[in-house]
Amino acid sequence: MRIDGRKPNETREISIERHYIKHAEGSVLISVGDTKVICTVTVEDKVPPFLRNSGTGWITAEYGMLPRSTGTRNQREATRGKVGGRTMEIQRLIGRALRSVVDLKALGEKTLWIDCDVIQADGGTRTASITGAFVALVDALYARMRDGALSTMPVTDFLAATSVGVVGGTPVLDLRYEEDSSAKVDMNIVMTGAGKFVELQGTGEDEPFSMEELNELIALGKHGVEYLISKQKEALGEIANLITDKANATTGA
Amino acid sequence: MRIDGRKPNETREISIERHYIKHAEGSVLISVGDTKVICTVTVEDKVPPFLRNSGTGWITAEYGMLPRSTGTRNQREATRGKVGGRTMEIQRLIGRALRSVVDLKALGEKTLWIDCDVIQADGGTRTASITGAFVALVDALYARMRDGALSTMPVTDFLAATSVGVVGGTPVLDLRYEEDSSAKVDMNIVMTGAGKFVELQGTGEDEPFSMEELNELIALGKHGVEYLISKQKEALGEIANLITDKANATTGA
Amino acid sequence: MRIDGRKPNETREISIERHYIKHAEGSVLISVGDTKVICTVTVEDKVPPFLRNSGTGWITAEYGMLPRSTGTRNQREATRGKVGGRTMEIQRLIGRALRSVVDLKALGEKTLWIDCDVIQADGGTRTASITGAFVALVDALYARMRDGALSTMPVTDFLAATSVGVVGGTPVLDLRYEEDSSAKVDMNIVMTGAGKFVELQGTGEDEPFSMEELNELIALGKHGVEYLISKQKEALGEIANLITDKANATTGA
Amino acid sequence: MRIDGRKPNETREISIERHYIKHAEGSVLISVGDTKVICTVTVEDKVPPFLRNSGTGWITAEYGMLPRSTGTRNQREATRGKVGGRTMEIQRLIGRALRSVVDLKALGEKTLWIDCDVIQADGGTRTASITGAFVALVDALYARMRDGALSTMPVTDFLAATSVGVVGGTPVLDLRYEEDSSAKVDMNIVMTGAGKFVELQGTGEDEPFSMEELNELIALGKHGVEYLISKQKEALGEIANLITDKANATTGA
Amino acid sequence: MRIDGRKPNETREISIERHYIKHAEGSVLISVGDTKVICTVTVEDKVPPFLRNSGTGWITAEYGMLPRSTGTRNQREATRGKVGGRTMEIQRLIGRALRSVVDLKALGEKTLWIDCDVIQADGGTRTASITGAFVALVDALYARMRDGALSTMPVTDFLAATSVGVVGGTPVLDLRYEEDSSAKVDMNIVMTGAGKFVELQGTGEDEPFSMEELNELIALGKHGVEYLISKQKEALGEIANLITDKANATTGA
Amino acid sequence: MRIDGRKPNETREISIERHYIKHAEGSVLISVGDTKVICTVTVEDKVPPFLRNSGTGWITAEYGMLPRSTGTRNQREATRGKVGGRTMEIQRLIGRALRSVVDLKALGEKTLWIDCDVIQADGGTRTASITGAFVALVDALYARMRDGALSTMPVTDFLAATSVGVVGGTPVLDLRYEEDSSAKVDMNIVMTGAGKFVELQGTGEDEPFSMEELNELIALGKHGVEYLISKQKEALGEIANLITDKANATTGA
Repeated sequence: MRIDGRKPNETREISIERHYIKHAEGSVLISVGDTKVICTVTVEDKVPPFLRNSGTGWITAEYGMLPRSTGTRNQREATRGKVGGRTMEIQRLIGRALRSVVDLKALGEKTLWIDCDVIQADGGTRTASITGAFVALVDALYARMRDGALSTMPVTDFLAATSVGVVGGTPVLDLRYEEDSSAKVDMNIVMTGAGKFVELQGTGEDEPFSMEELNELIALGKHGVEYLISKQKEALGEIANLITDKANATTGA
Repeated sequence: MRIDGRKPNETREISIERHYIKHAEGSVLISVGDTKVICTVTVEDKVPPFLRNSGTGWITAEYGMLPRSTGTRNQREATRGKVGGRTMEIQRLIGRALRSVVDLKALGEKTLWIDCDVIQADGGTRTASITGAFVALVDALYARMRDGALSTMPVTDFLAATSVGVVGGTPVLDLRYEEDSSAKVDMNIVMTGAGKFVELQGTGEDEPFSMEELNELIALGKHGVEYLISKQKEALGEIANLITDKANATTGA
Repeated sequence: MRIDGRKPNETREISIERHYIKHAEGSVLISVGDTKVICTVTVEDKVPPFLRNSGTGWITAEYGMLPRSTGTRNQREATRGKVGGRTMEIQRLIGRALRSVVDLKALGEKTLWIDCDVIQADGGTRTASITGAFVALVDALYARMRDGALSTMPVTDFLAATSVGVVGGTPVLDLRYEEDSSAKVDMNIVMTGAGKFVELQGTGEDEPFSMEELNELIALGKHGVEYLISKQKEALGEIANLITDKANATTGA
Repeated sequence: MRIDGRKPNETREISIERHYIKHAEGSVLISVGDTKVICTVTVEDKVPPFLRNSGTGWITAEYGMLPRSTGTRNQREATRGKVGGRTMEIQRLIGRALRSVVDLKALGEKTLWIDCDVIQADGGTRTASITGAFVALVDALYARMRDGALSTMPVTDFLAATSVGVVGGTPVLDLRYEEDSSAKVDMNIVMTGAGKFVELQGTGEDEPFSMEELNELIALGKHGVEYLISKQKEALGEIANLITDKANATTGA
Repeated sequence: MRIDGRKPNETREISIERHYIKHAEGSVLISVGDTKVICTVTVEDKVPPFLRNSGTGWITAEYGMLPRSTGTRNQREATRGKVGGRTMEIQRLIGRALRSVVDLKALGEKTLWIDCDVIQADGGTRTASITGAFVALVDALYARMRDGALSTMPVTDFLAATSVGVVGGTPVLDLRYEEDSSAKVDMNIVMTGAGKFVELQGTGEDEPFSMEELNELIALGKHGVEYLISKQKEALGEIANLITDKANATTGA
Repeated sequence: MRIDGRKPNETREISIERHYIKHAEGSVLISVGDTKVICTVTVEDKVPPFLRNSGTGWITAEYGMLPRSTGTRNQREATRGKVGGRTMEIQRLIGRALRSVVDLKALGEKTLWIDCDVIQADGGTRTASITGAFVALVDALYARMRDGALSTMPVTDFLAATSVGVVGGTPVLDLRYEEDSSAKVDMNIVMTGAGKFVELQGTGEDEPFSMEELNELIALGKHGVEYLISKQKEALGEIANLITDKANATTGA
């Protein structure tokens, strides 16, 4: 039995609130249990130097935590004067993940700035960021379709992420902070609507893990991501069809 | 007639939501129209070096804006690697303002960390920060009273802040961003429940202002602060009495 | 009676030495009692990106203190690797103040760099910087008129600044460091030759102040600024008339 | 057929040169094909603050590339004034990996500083760093055993790392730079002598990957790590037995 | 004939104004022609970590240039956020030079902070800094003798510095900026009262120099330093004897 | 007798291994006793802004030490976030030295990036860097001649550097670290094949030195540089003639 009474393969309660910040082209407040992240997407009509005149767009992500999003106050990175290693790792992960389901050629020479800011943290902030940012990104691109700047939705499939781990000897899905800090094995899984892996990052710093454990964790993660994608579809309503159609076209479904 | 139909001496709609972030000792989401700021207060049981063994506490404030809290995305200060001048000015202002209504001797050797993070900006973010942080600070200290770490509420009076300015020749209260950017004179006023000034910062960069204008602006500001303090009292409910009693004792009211 | 025998409404001895640094277009050593600041003005024939092709000029200011300008050595900001909050606040203040009396359209696409370096500090360094920089700026622009780069003096009025405060219960003018550190209320006033406010920054961190105190402080400040402007005129000699004429034309005097 | 004629499951030529830098407690030059990394291990008799008086040691890693280790010169991170995201990610990975096979309690309050500096890069620098640093770490600890500072070898198992990826549709082992840059899927695998996973990091930024591909990649990686561990044993000679014994004791082999 | 009419072996006009900044333990304004440097010396009653409990003192130097000390404005190092290579080189040179004539054991566990700030530059700022700082250092230590903190003057000999160079084929003494920028060979010489070298830094970036040229330059430098030391003695008056006596005792003169 | 049995005028064993790093246009591993430095030269087809459209090239150098190149680990400058004063001094020295023997006009608008990375240090790292970088530079330029980008070798003469010092009262050549740390006088000498000085940097921080000592040190240095240049010629083989011819042409030999 888990600390909050969940079964091993159960996620926490998920909510996705769209249009959360009035200024951003796309914005979402995602809650995964007590983890709450504001995800915004900004569309900029230029690309980094290495893509100029390539006809190709780019997606870059930044991530931050409010000082009291955590149990004890953590110092602002702005005050410290540098972005820490953990933050950089997460920023790079979010960027790679979202780029994997956007056709950057179809996007054209635009940059999508993904900003994920954790206002309350209880484990799984990087995976919640990816799941929420995906919805904000779709909204931002949809806004661009409506105003004529894009003729087609350049998103090729759904994308969500969750964490899994071995806690007290049992593989479990969607770890809260207390579970995460006592987990022997810890894995983040980013998957597409088609059930393929975009990122798989497992670490057994405290105890190496076996092939069997890996397989169990992957099965839990797949289950979790499927549920998260169902919530993304629910949140997006009709707009979801634009992506489903595209994904089906690609896979021939 | 103002852009949103308000009268010159009218504030925007105010809401103060307490206990907004579960981890912080005190936390508030304050909305002043479309300006929304998360204010948290952390109580730390130590003081900066210059106060060690003085029996006196300290209050320090930090301020940040999410990248898309504004109409166009502004770069993260963490990414730039330094805190800008505007942010520093605001941080120093918030700290000074709150210190003016806390009896630091009665607080004892504790540091209160005020964090104000703007999630959506529409003018007046620094004054909203002060007004919201005051409520979060009272909550944080009240929590410390309940758990026995403080025997008395060390807050000596209410404190709120608002902005006033001369827009299109007319002095007006509580400027939205559009008003603020076209104002010839711009002033921030921080006042106590007793109607005294804690900070008065007026600037006439585009057009110097006269003594008459100054007096009109101050009258508007006083009116605005009184209304904000009434909203703080409403939000705090019974806890407000702890401060009212203290303030009355001080002024002999 | 004040520590140096002055009356409450008396300034310290003022001297303004022009052409102090041979390389700069305008340069002044201003002494306000023992506070000594080197102010230089550099004219650069380009503007920041946001003003390119606007036909409009810009004024920006930087401020520094030599390590031993103060009673105990303060670490160099260059060595610390960042400019502190107090410095940024002062830099922004000096820039805003001087922009308020220069017709930036008439200046054309030039940037005036104001550098104020405190070589000896005894209170009031930011107000001495503004007062001194004004004279250096006039000299720099006058040099440009003589070499034909400007056809008219783009300065619209005189400008000076002073500090006032409540020390031991008494409002006083032009505080020395010892007075400043014990003042309950502290205010900086920047005014024009026409007697209008450009900046008013009062803080009652230790004790909030009333409307009556505010009025007394403003009266003292006005008196001080008038005296400082008389010293600026004296220092500038005939050149002063170029500004007096302009100011009169504007106000219809 | 691969660009250098290797079969899909073939590693490049491996060499491990011990005692490469005379000053370091442990030091290795590892070559994996044309990738060459100097790995040094420094033993420091103190621990970071969070471990003081815990009786537990720590391992931390730093990684760098010489400017011309790569085809085009990359700017020094010292000159840029900050460590980039990729470097931080790698440093954190190396540290976690090595901590997983060291009994930090048995190490006692010491810090092992791992430094991996790439002098020539041709793909797989992070995995070569882990593989080489493991040998340097064993040497550093063995030196400490000989001088009596440690009574037992605190290393619990062998550890090596390799990269695998899908290149031109085929899963291959130990990618050179040219392969790496055209790979659709890219995975780093860190495994122990007992064949368990310490880290598994797969990314399908360009093309998500299926469960089948994952299994093929893992099989290749396992094969590669086994070969690398055989080379580590060869390099360490008799000292290798100290670890083999320990690992057998743990697994009951 | 040189640009300002001097003979090859002639220095510019020298003046040394003591007690220039009221707060510092020792302070000097040195003018070498149009080069003007404020040198202050601060005595701190502690030493850097590497000297704690050694009974030995330390001398460290910092150097800066005001932005308009030069013909075109140079950006503040505080604003750039880092100290440049030239500044670091000069700081290290000044520190080494002054340490060479102070008996750090006799000084005891104190740190002398030398600050040299160039307010106007016309070549030779580093050598003027050394020459001026020497006098400020003697004043600071003399003040400590008078207040009983030191029983003896720990300065072992006089010390001054000058520049020499080959300009237009002719070796010359004490180069102005215009000469310096066209010199083929450029050398700084720091010497003691006893005529020994403390630092000799010659560079022939534009044209390597021969042994004969070296000897001519050294002769000029020796002549210049002797004159500078005579000016230091003149400025110090009777205090100079404290050092002359010490130097004679050491050399047996 | 010196610690390693050498005579005062004897250098350590020298080896120069060319083509050490496969990616760089020129690269050398130089060993001077136990001091080992990797020197690479990168040719970039552009110049810094101040040389654009001048037809003139540039040479710039960077220097680093691996953390365990020294007896105790030194912190990475990348981690500290800034390049230290010693490093900057050495970088500037290497750049100046190499520019003195390259005809930058003949080089054309190219920048040569010199990177010197110390992998093992035992005194004399800066002089070994210069001596090794010279060979790498010749190789890089020769490669450019072969591919037709340069029609002539723009190197005007050989260049090498060594250190000399007074150890235990005796002037000695090519100091090891132990000698260097106990030397009273320490001097670096950079000379050309024609026997002229490019840089001469002597410091007598612990004990000023006389003209006689200077002459002895210079004689030793000249002897050492001649030997180093003979080793450079040996290493370069036939390519050396390209420079010898040029140098002879210049000096009329």
